[in-house]
Amino acid sequence: MTGACADIDAAGYWSVECWGGATYDACIRFLNEDPWHRLRTFRELLPNSRLQMLLRGQNLLGYRHYEDTVVNRFVERAAANGMDVFRIFDALNDLRNIETALRAVRRTGKHAQGTVCYTISPVHTIEHFVDLAEQLVEMGADSICVKDMAALLKPQPAYDLVRGIKQRCGEDVRVHVHVHATTGVTLVSLMRAIEAGADAVDTSISSLSLGPGHNPTESLVEMLEGTGFSTRLDKARLLAIKEHFATVRPRYAEFESNFIGAEAEIFDSQIPGGMLSNMESQLKQQDAAARIKEVMEEVPRVRRDAGYPPLVTPSSQIVGTQAVFNVLMGRYKVLSGEFADLMLGYYGAALAERDPEVIAIATQHAKKEPITCRPADLLSAEWDNLLSSTNALEGSDGTDEDVLTYAMFPQVAPKFFSTRPDGPKNLTRQTPAPVPAVIGPEPVQTPVSYDVTFNGRTHKITVKPG
Amino acid sequence: MTGACADIDAAGYWSVECWGGATYDACIRFLNEDPWHRLRTFRELLPNSRLQMLLRGQNLLGYRHYEDTVVNRFVERAAANGMDVFRIFDALNDLRNIETALRAVRRTGKHAQGTVCYTISPVHTIEHFVDLAEQLVEMGADSICVKDMAALLKPQPAYDLVRGIKQRCGEDVRVHVHVHATTGVTLVSLMRAIEAGADAVDTSISSLSLGPGHNPTESLVEMLEGTGFSTRLDKARLLAIKEHFATVRPRYAEFESNFIGAEAEIFDSQIPGGMLSNMESQLKQQDAAARIKEVMEEVPRVRRDAGYPPLVTPSSQIVGTQAVFNVLMGRYKVLSGEFADLMLGYYGAALAERDPEVIAIATQHAKKEPITCRPADLLSAEWDNLLSSTNALEGSDGTDEDVLTYAMFPQVAPKFFSTRPDGPKNLTRQTPAPVPAVIGPEPVQTPVSYDVTFNGRTHKITVKPG
Repeated sequence: MTGACADIDAAGYWSVECWGGATYDACIRFLNEDPWHRLRTFRELLPNSRLQMLLRGQNLLGYRHYEDTVVNRFVERAAANGMDVFRIFDALNDLRNIETALRAVRRTGKHAQGTVCYTISPVHTIEHFVDLAEQLVEMGADSICVKDMAALLKPQPAYDLVRGIKQRCGEDVRVHVHVHATTGVTLVSLMRAIEAGADAVDTSISSLSLGPGHNPTESLVEMLEGTGFSTRLDKARLLAIKEHFATVRPRYAEFESNFIGAEAEIFDSQIPGGMLSNMESQLKQQDAAARIKEVMEEVPRVRRDAGYPPLVTPSSQIVGTQAVFNVLMGRYKVLSGEFADLMLGYYGAALAERDPEVIAIATQHAKKEPITCRPADLLSAEWDNLLSSTNALEGSDGTDEDVLTYAMFPQVAPKFFSTRPDGPKNLTRQTPAPVPAVIGPEPVQTPVSYDVTFNGRTHKITVKPG
Repeated sequence: MTGACADIDAAGYWSVECWGGATYDACIRFLNEDPWHRLRTFRELLPNSRLQMLLRGQNLLGYRHYEDTVVNRFVERAAANGMDVFRIFDALNDLRNIETALRAVRRTGKHAQGTVCYTISPVHTIEHFVDLAEQLVEMGADSICVKDMAALLKPQPAYDLVRGIKQRCGEDVRVHVHVHATTGVTLVSLMRAIEAGADAVDTSISSLSLGPGHNPTESLVEMLEGTGFSTRLDKARLLAIKEHFATVRPRYAEFESNFIGAEAEIFDSQIPGGMLSNMESQLKQQDAAARIKEVMEEVPRVRRDAGYPPLVTPSSQIVGTQAVFNVLMGRYKVLSGEFADLMLGYYGAALAERDPEVIAIATQHAKKEPITCRPADLLSAEWDNLLSSTNALEGSDGTDEDVLTYAMFPQVAPKFFSTRPDGPKNLTRQTPAPVPAVIGPEPVQTPVSYDVTFNGRTHKITVKPG
């Protein structure tokens, strides 16, 4: 990425999302690269850009809730290392899981963007999303992001939602719209969002765009000609960035998804592509691949029983796995620990009432009571423990950044700290691997003669194929 | 394709484009398949659908102008074999090259769609395209198609163009919009075209969509929700068609283009992707690959000198090749025969005045004078010659259809007629080549018996794995 930074820095972007989400995990799990070093590199190479990150609220970049001190420390260190814009979301849209992180960002003087996760269900309305946006503004958010991770935001709702937020919160409240391209409709949705007053929309450079990713930046720029709207982007810079990544991308061909065209059936199934392939592989492991249709019909039921959570990490995996369990072993005969936690409120509140019978099963299964408080309120101070555990690890360097790495990835961090001095690994293929025309050696078809020395004497031995 | 026809026939499409363009050429050149047999197969398998074809006006499906009798005979045979809708265009938008075919379609009672090729240049205006549409309606066209083969039609011009045609020609004149997805903006253009009153827009099923192809059908259907517009398409049928072609497409993986994402820079260079790769390969053959930037700057000059033709087959190849010649050998030092013909009017009229100096060079080079008449007016009756030439070929069957095949593809037809009895060839890989986790034979797990000859005597020897 470093080779494109000079062009990115001068292209005119409002911000550059370059950290957080799964990038931290990928750095330490696969690349032997310190994510904090990466952040400082971006800060150095993008001196004129706002750096932006995606933060999973009280989960930070990990997969559980953290106590407030850890959240505060993470935000403070990210800001100190160069982060400018924190886009903060919660998978259940439970704003109590966003509040600590948002206030921490405000204390650093950086930009705190409150996020509404968009989804479709019988209980999710434009009105509800606008309410959430209003509460985020009241909480102190500097701007609002509408996050459509599953590409479900159609043009008309995009217009209604952005217009609704502007009308309720004020025309001067910045609204950013983040969509994926998966279903093929969302560039049209961005056009309508812009007409409704959106201040920024998220895209990616064309050579890394489309499929499960984002819409192409250059197409957005061209699309606006003659509409009265425009971007401030420099087309020559965009072309240079495009060409850079067009060269890079083929080296990662083995990591490409099998995505073809567009997946508009997500609108009906409510099952994002990544979730579907997860469920398929779970079924395959149980020799039950043929039951995928049953599982796809079970997902909306499980989602209803859980109070219609948006399907995004981690709720998509939790709901999907439980649907597989229900089909293979009978409905709610077996519960995953995570699904029990979801039903009992340990991830936060749901929009709709959860099914009381399933709550009762979850209570029995998990041997704990449902909660209605903010999940993190149940956690006791943990920083000192994390600090001493981290300092005990070979290769840890005593910084708060290392403590945070260990806190979020306790399984992966010890190995990473110990191998960190070796430096980052390059996982690309410099040239694409050739596909062999013939797999393995040709089978032997004719008799083969060997000279075999046996008890000191050499014999000519001929062997016919077995 | 036959496996998807039942679903296609019941899906609710206004028409199914399934013949013409390059499909005829591909049938006889690569597939050893009679294109007329293919047409009759579609007619049989799609009894409730309008079959549609793309016809290059006076060029039919070939690469030169044909005398009117040949054009009339082609249209008559296509209609008799089952074609319903003829979409007729000319690469230069010279309507005199469309008229004979259009009148021939009218005589058969089938649907004659007059086509306007969309392009961008200093002389091409919405007003001009609307004028063309009006002339086509006056000529007897049953409907108008706006054909955007290079994906240059942006949302605002799409609106203005469709609205302009409707206002000038009447709201009841059907307007169809055909765009490619190449630049990434055109689904938005279709939305705006629909808002302007377009009656039909062209898409392809998602598993065959995007890249240099079309926008995904299913995305269009979903996009319209809540907008007041809708299609009559059956989503369950679309899903079945999608899944069918998602299985078929990987078998043709070796024929895929290297297209990634979107190519918005076409708006500036005016050079469609296919034209660019043509020029690159021409330069490479001359060991001059490094001069591609000079050629790209030369293309707009050559296009200006030729009176700003739209860049579509064959004008794109003619202009591109001349630009390569100009860079390698000096401007207009060497002319291709086709470029001389283009400059002298032998492909038809240009919108802007052609450069008089280049016309003079072309006159000298081709040893013929510029013309202003309809090019086909210079041709003398040719059917009888074509008939006797065809009948002299081994394997020809004496039908008008065979004469037309020979007329359009005189180099390819003789071989095709002689091999036709062998039937169509399948060029797919039936199953994708498996990517082996380990390259090499499976380890031996069970005892294997061998016949071993040792000092002239044969023994049965059984070996257990070590």
